[in-house]
Amino acid sequence: MGSTYAAEPSPLPAAFRSEHDLLGDRDVPADAYYGIHTLRAVENFPITGTPISVYPELVAALACVKQAAALANRDLGTLDGHKADAIVAACEEIRGGKLHDAFVVDVIQGGAGTSTNMNANEVVANRALELLGHAKGEYRHVHPLEDVNAGQSTNDVYPTAVKIALDFTAQRLLDAMEVLRDAFAAKAEEFADVLKMGRTQLQDAVPMTLGQEFATYAIMLEEDRKRLGEACELIREINLGGTAIGTGLNAHPRYAAVACGHLRDITGLPLSVADDLVEATQDAGAFVQLSGVLKRIAVKLSKTCNDLRLLSCGPRAGLGEINLPPVQAGSSIMPGKVNPVVPEVVNQIAFEVIGNDMAVTMAAEAGQLQLNAFEPVIAHSLLKSLTHLRAGCLTLAERCVTGITANREHLADLVAHSIGLATALNPHIGYEQATAVAKEALESGRSVRELVLEKGLLTEDELARILHPDNLARPHTARTA
Amino acid sequence: MGSTYAAEPSPLPAAFRSEHDLLGDRDVPADAYYGIHTLRAVENFPITGTPISVYPELVAALACVKQAAALANRDLGTLDGHKADAIVAACEEIRGGKLHDAFVVDVIQGGAGTSTNMNANEVVANRALELLGHAKGEYRHVHPLEDVNAGQSTNDVYPTAVKIALDFTAQRLLDAMEVLRDAFAAKAEEFADVLKMGRTQLQDAVPMTLGQEFATYAIMLEEDRKRLGEACELIREINLGGTAIGTGLNAHPRYAAVACGHLRDITGLPLSVADDLVEATQDAGAFVQLSGVLKRIAVKLSKTCNDLRLLSCGPRAGLGEINLPPVQAGSSIMPGKVNPVVPEVVNQIAFEVIGNDMAVTMAAEAGQLQLNAFEPVIAHSLLKSLTHLRAGCLTLAERCVTGITANREHLADLVAHSIGLATALNPHIGYEQATAVAKEALESGRSVRELVLEKGLLTEDELARILHPDNLARPHTARTA
Amino acid sequence: MGSTYAAEPSPLPAAFRSEHDLLGDRDVPADAYYGIHTLRAVENFPITGTPISVYPELVAALACVKQAAALANRDLGTLDGHKADAIVAACEEIRGGKLHDAFVVDVIQGGAGTSTNMNANEVVANRALELLGHAKGEYRHVHPLEDVNAGQSTNDVYPTAVKIALDFTAQRLLDAMEVLRDAFAAKAEEFADVLKMGRTQLQDAVPMTLGQEFATYAIMLEEDRKRLGEACELIREINLGGTAIGTGLNAHPRYAAVACGHLRDITGLPLSVADDLVEATQDAGAFVQLSGVLKRIAVKLSKTCNDLRLLSCGPRAGLGEINLPPVQAGSSIMPGKVNPVVPEVVNQIAFEVIGNDMAVTMAAEAGQLQLNAFEPVIAHSLLKSLTHLRAGCLTLAERCVTGITANREHLADLVAHSIGLATALNPHIGYEQATAVAKEALESGRSVRELVLEKGLLTEDELARILHPDNLARPHTARTA
Amino acid sequence: MGSTYAAEPSPLPAAFRSEHDLLGDRDVPADAYYGIHTLRAVENFPITGTPISVYPELVAALACVKQAAALANRDLGTLDGHKADAIVAACEEIRGGKLHDAFVVDVIQGGAGTSTNMNANEVVANRALELLGHAKGEYRHVHPLEDVNAGQSTNDVYPTAVKIALDFTAQRLLDAMEVLRDAFAAKAEEFADVLKMGRTQLQDAVPMTLGQEFATYAIMLEEDRKRLGEACELIREINLGGTAIGTGLNAHPRYAAVACGHLRDITGLPLSVADDLVEATQDAGAFVQLSGVLKRIAVKLSKTCNDLRLLSCGPRAGLGEINLPPVQAGSSIMPGKVNPVVPEVVNQIAFEVIGNDMAVTMAAEAGQLQLNAFEPVIAHSLLKSLTHLRAGCLTLAERCVTGITANREHLADLVAHSIGLATALNPHIGYEQATAVAKEALESGRSVRELVLEKGLLTEDELARILHPDNLARPHTARTA
Repeated sequence: MGSTYAAEPSPLPAAFRSEHDLLGDRDVPADAYYGIHTLRAVENFPITGTPISVYPELVAALACVKQAAALANRDLGTLDGHKADAIVAACEEIRGGKLHDAFVVDVIQGGAGTSTNMNANEVVANRALELLGHAKGEYRHVHPLEDVNAGQSTNDVYPTAVKIALDFTAQRLLDAMEVLRDAFAAKAEEFADVLKMGRTQLQDAVPMTLGQEFATYAIMLEEDRKRLGEACELIREINLGGTAIGTGLNAHPRYAAVACGHLRDITGLPLSVADDLVEATQDAGAFVQLSGVLKRIAVKLSKTCNDLRLLSCGPRAGLGEINLPPVQAGSSIMPGKVNPVVPEVVNQIAFEVIGNDMAVTMAAEAGQLQLNAFEPVIAHSLLKSLTHLRAGCLTLAERCVTGITANREHLADLVAHSIGLATALNPHIGYEQATAVAKEALESGRSVRELVLEKGLLTEDELARILHPDNLARPHTARTA
Repeated sequence: MGSTYAAEPSPLPAAFRSEHDLLGDRDVPADAYYGIHTLRAVENFPITGTPISVYPELVAALACVKQAAALANRDLGTLDGHKADAIVAACEEIRGGKLHDAFVVDVIQGGAGTSTNMNANEVVANRALELLGHAKGEYRHVHPLEDVNAGQSTNDVYPTAVKIALDFTAQRLLDAMEVLRDAFAAKAEEFADVLKMGRTQLQDAVPMTLGQEFATYAIMLEEDRKRLGEACELIREINLGGTAIGTGLNAHPRYAAVACGHLRDITGLPLSVADDLVEATQDAGAFVQLSGVLKRIAVKLSKTCNDLRLLSCGPRAGLGEINLPPVQAGSSIMPGKVNPVVPEVVNQIAFEVIGNDMAVTMAAEAGQLQLNAFEPVIAHSLLKSLTHLRAGCLTLAERCVTGITANREHLADLVAHSIGLATALNPHIGYEQATAVAKEALESGRSVRELVLEKGLLTEDELARILHPDNLARPHTARTA
Repeated sequence: MGSTYAAEPSPLPAAFRSEHDLLGDRDVPADAYYGIHTLRAVENFPITGTPISVYPELVAALACVKQAAALANRDLGTLDGHKADAIVAACEEIRGGKLHDAFVVDVIQGGAGTSTNMNANEVVANRALELLGHAKGEYRHVHPLEDVNAGQSTNDVYPTAVKIALDFTAQRLLDAMEVLRDAFAAKAEEFADVLKMGRTQLQDAVPMTLGQEFATYAIMLEEDRKRLGEACELIREINLGGTAIGTGLNAHPRYAAVACGHLRDITGLPLSVADDLVEATQDAGAFVQLSGVLKRIAVKLSKTCNDLRLLSCGPRAGLGEINLPPVQAGSSIMPGKVNPVVPEVVNQIAFEVIGNDMAVTMAAEAGQLQLNAFEPVIAHSLLKSLTHLRAGCLTLAERCVTGITANREHLADLVAHSIGLATALNPHIGYEQATAVAKEALESGRSVRELVLEKGLLTEDELARILHPDNLARPHTARTA
Repeated sequence: MGSTYAAEPSPLPAAFRSEHDLLGDRDVPADAYYGIHTLRAVENFPITGTPISVYPELVAALACVKQAAALANRDLGTLDGHKADAIVAACEEIRGGKLHDAFVVDVIQGGAGTSTNMNANEVVANRALELLGHAKGEYRHVHPLEDVNAGQSTNDVYPTAVKIALDFTAQRLLDAMEVLRDAFAAKAEEFADVLKMGRTQLQDAVPMTLGQEFATYAIMLEEDRKRLGEACELIREINLGGTAIGTGLNAHPRYAAVACGHLRDITGLPLSVADDLVEATQDAGAFVQLSGVLKRIAVKLSKTCNDLRLLSCGPRAGLGEINLPPVQAGSSIMPGKVNPVVPEVVNQIAFEVIGNDMAVTMAAEAGQLQLNAFEPVIAHSLLKSLTHLRAGCLTLAERCVTGITANREHLADLVAHSIGLATALNPHIGYEQATAVAKEALESGRSVRELVLEKGLLTEDELARILHPDNLARPHTARTA
């Protein structure tokens, strides 16, 4: 009887082998590690042209899950030891970076990740077959579904693998954010004594140091790193063992616990099995949360880059407070023009990430009943966001922040002539007097200091003390009731 | 037998009348123009606390539709003449601004607008009853469903009324955009001769006039007005006559055409019946398109306000090119500070409109099979966007743009010292020479003019001609191959 | 001398008092608790027509902050005791629900919340004046800025008050989510023994219980409650004491700590002062995070409502698994039709919340340099989302979930005739045999059980055991390698 | 003297040539068609790993613009004839598909497209050099900036090329939408006589035909095609000739008109020069509009796919009205399961497109002053959306819609037993009587027909006429007042 996958004797040239599934027979390239299910998926989803192998962490994560499942099945007696060994060996090769080019299904695909899981099952099975001395396609020895996928369903394998891949990728983003944080922190130290005008609502406000300004960017990044770390914890709760809908049908009662234990060992991640697998199988909440945090990071990185572009606006007709290092000629027509291209590219990454969050939101909301069928686009969007944010952080740190210089004299000038100094006089001459001085200064073009002295509101000594840099950039008040 | 709505003899105090529906009996305040269906809807949807009467255009539009339907039913013999007359008279009162406080259902409600339609049916019926000398609730004389709603369904009445309301409201936005456009155009003329540095990527680029800058805002608005006008045309295709799902079940074959004719007369709008009513009944495409255009307007208004805030950044430590008129004190702590609060509020309206577009998008995508049940939130979002954008345009025109002044000397200074002038030399001394001059100017702090003369690259006469304002801000070249 | 706010002797009718600010004099209604700054703001921002008093928690939170500031200033000797006492007494009245109608500025306003802070300063000052026996407007006794706002700036007061208001409002949402969670949990218990077909990708999958399905909704809500609780923790870090830009200019060095202590006592919330006030003053990250969590809640509530609508699709031509309680007539044309209007309204709230998140995202990204000027629309969006989600949860619980019934026979029938039962046979007859049976069942219309017996693949006893409900809805396997 | 780009004599191995720019010297691979500016851009933007050559239409469009510019410069005497000829020949090769692999800059890049324009200038120059018999890098003969880019700036070249590329790509989407429209229309004809229950709010409503249901999808697509066509018209207004900021600095006064004329000839598109080039250079409105229309298309395609998935829900426990053709095995665990993977993948494309629209919106809003620096992410997002939507339409047509079959008997059964038939009785027995019948039918499980006869409300003949299929699915009424 013709079993699924069975390689029938056939007059085919050696370049193909025949496989079949519930739809019939198909020729698969003889040297392909993937099989008929993958072949059909490639044909069914010619969408982006980008195969899942573009995310090596996802391919590795799939291998981790298959390996853990094989070990669990061996432990529980539901898989032959020698089959399990071959599957484990194949998975380790894949985790080591081999065979990734056999993961060919499109990053956007139907079917809740079924095609990705099928692709993994087939590659692992065929490589295991080779390791056992069989030809590819001789699935009676190691079967993609009955052996490699034993006790599993796409619906528990795929989200588990995606979570692991996200975690791997997120760790790399966390590292990159640390690099960027340190770059800002170094500048904060370098500029610790540079007094400048702070601005609120784009209007001159009160003095601060450029160091405080850069320290802010470092602190924001560190806070965002914490939030990302917390979001990662949520994706470490997996539903492996739930099989099709979380009821664990066809899985050994101890399978979930045993498989998760192996997966912890293999990945080094503190994974845990969800308390309720039915809920965990359909719930895309952890993805939405992670996406929301990535959006938060994007929002703040974009704000930071907006600031860098604004502060370096010039060279002559802008704020001109800082200089970004030139990294390329800025114009095909304007000689000598240098543009803030690195912050600009990070802005664009941020916009993309915010858009990706919308795609994730739509996909999560569209989940129905016991499963979210749209996890592939969720995975794709999140992996893209993580990867691009990482590139953006590193690029920003290395090609922009570390080379920033301050126009110290210009900054000092702006403070000296600022009307914002009037604020510091509030506790001494009152809001209304200070307002009158500020207004006159603005209209006459004269300085606040000059007017205060002229009107005899304060003595030169008092003024000197009040406007001393040490007193301007940190809490300080002279008022007593 | 107890018929729906029948006012049974009852021991109730005069303050209530009893009505009933398929769920049973309920007391309705005796003086209420609405009835039991409205009462239940108010109880079922205590969501925002905002009744639909917050949109007078929507209430008026509902009355327009009910009036047109009554006239069509009278014409076709499916409604008694005296009933029709009373219904028409009630509708005209509502269109004249009366009884709006009887439209009490929440702006966010379930049921595809059923509660809004029921509310309209009941108010019209009860007012018609009064006009005919009957008491409210005596529905055997004029029935909310069998008479006021004759030949109709929520599913054709509600979207038709929403479209008319949107059109009414959009016309008011178009007017407001015209006011703002004119305000910008007047400034463009006022500043026609003010030379300034243009900026690309926030870096000094080449000269232009402040008039050109403001003309841009006027032109953008005019283009957006055209797009809004086009989007309005799309919402003038209605599905009245389609009844429940567009098949026109229970409507007279000529009802759609006759009712639409009356509706055109009543509203003064060039409405037309959709070719395919089944399609028109479920398709939220015209709403999505309108929302997309409102988003476009928001995006560009926001960009314009960003520019105004940026150009007025200062007064001393910013670009300081223009001054926005002060409209209120800017700070509770910083004396004399004045902020660009009017552009800021328009930015916020824009963000809200962009968010509303997302709500419309989600709601439109969620439509299922023969109807989009989520039209109430679509209507609410669009009416909010239209209304707030109108308020924003008028406020921006009247409280900001018309009072803007230019710092002409400062602008002239920036041009004179700009490195961007080097661009104008390209055709005369080549991109590479010009780059060298620009670089030296930047590093030395000297002017482009000075360096060019010193190096003998051009004569003073040549320079004067090339850098003449008339040649800088419009196409001009001296190069010949 | 003409001081800001001074009530000059004037020939005005008693109905007005004159106040002035840096733009000049204005008449304020004599009985108004607000003053000139509020008046101008009302004129400047005629946007939504909705005053900030629509959010009582925000008004109360402003009073909390003003009270804490007065106490801190008294403690530190920067405010007279009797002034402080009057301010405190005024704030307590406001917190008790009085004077809310004097908070009249628009929910969407320019200026980073300056107008809201000014409104609060003026109302508190005028009420304090009254309590001290002075007339409204006699600001020389208690001054809105110099006394009520002493040591403060909008830029620390406003975000602090917004955070407290969000926390108050979020607690009410948490309570409502608990009510809804319990409603689902009660149904989960009620339906614990009702076997039904689970579905993945909208296709029949494998059996589960209806109890498991409803338990999922309860668990999701509980997880979302945890995430909301965590997001609330982040908004308990405040920047009070940072004044204009976080440098604490004009605030007593101990002011931040003392004021925060009082604020903790007044609000009962575990608030803390941010480590770096410059960063905290400009960082909208906690708002974005909260908004992201609200979006997550919205996404999952929407998914849940989609499921409820889908499972109750019918009554005869749909899935018909459950019945939602009828709460109103569903149609103006279709007799007897009852629609899932309560889940529908919750879907719409979800769409609105997702849109609000987009507005928050845009507003947060648009922050520049030392301040985010767009906090008013952030506050408005978040308060709207929190309030509407709460209404949605309560409505869904009370008017829908508690009244849901199951069509038990129909559900049992579907399981008995399901092809999904073939999955349970996998471990016993293999994936390929099971596939063949499933395919034949589908094509012939016969049952899986029947075919398995006919083909002699399993005995009746074996089948009975494998398909026993206890084994179908939880992990169970018979396979041994 | 060391000129930019000059290939200095050097001891370098033949594998490299030296180029330099304002930042200094760099080695470029000797066989590379790109030059130093491209090299730096590749290093500066290691973001997505995807080069712009992934969009062949964009590369071709760049060549079109460079060719038109060279011809215009030749016509106007600002470029040597033999240089122009070589440039034109190089451009034609690129338009013919050659040299695309030399377009290596990242799709997400800083600098408003400067790097893309530089990449094009360098590739065209080097190929032109070869055609003239010179070595690559001998820019004194044909210079990337002074010759290939003569009279141009990135700021007019890039948006013009992007618009042309979008138009080319949109035409392919329009074709694909036509294929899908025709597939739906064919089904509409095939199912023209299949009566079924229509549903509103997921509840049984009134009868219609399956043909009407499918016709709707065809009509929606046709309307969307019209909208896309209109949006394409807007992107045919270009700013070529505006150079840096739209003032046309350094361009010959007739350059814009002449170049646009050539571009029309080369592309075959009815392009026109914008009336105001300053406005056109900074305005991203046409991109936002196009993106909004793509979002509209996505929303409706997604709605359509939701319907297809819903109508095919089953095979036994769902609506089961239609069957989608199986295209692959649906599950790794559930034998025989076939999923609606093709509609699912289209849903995911739609989510991605909606997310892309958000990225476009953010990028457009972020434009500042005379230029939008974020056009690269706008171009990338739009080209992605257009390309993926096209793939989705073709896949849906070919692998799903054409193979759909109807379960005719089941559909007929549902109509016969439907309570929705009561609606058709409204005009004959009144809404209240019909409601009573509907309610009793629902509660008793009996049919509407049976109850009406039993109660003697209508005769069998009357019923037969009223419920005749021809009368149910189109406007028809018997009521007279």
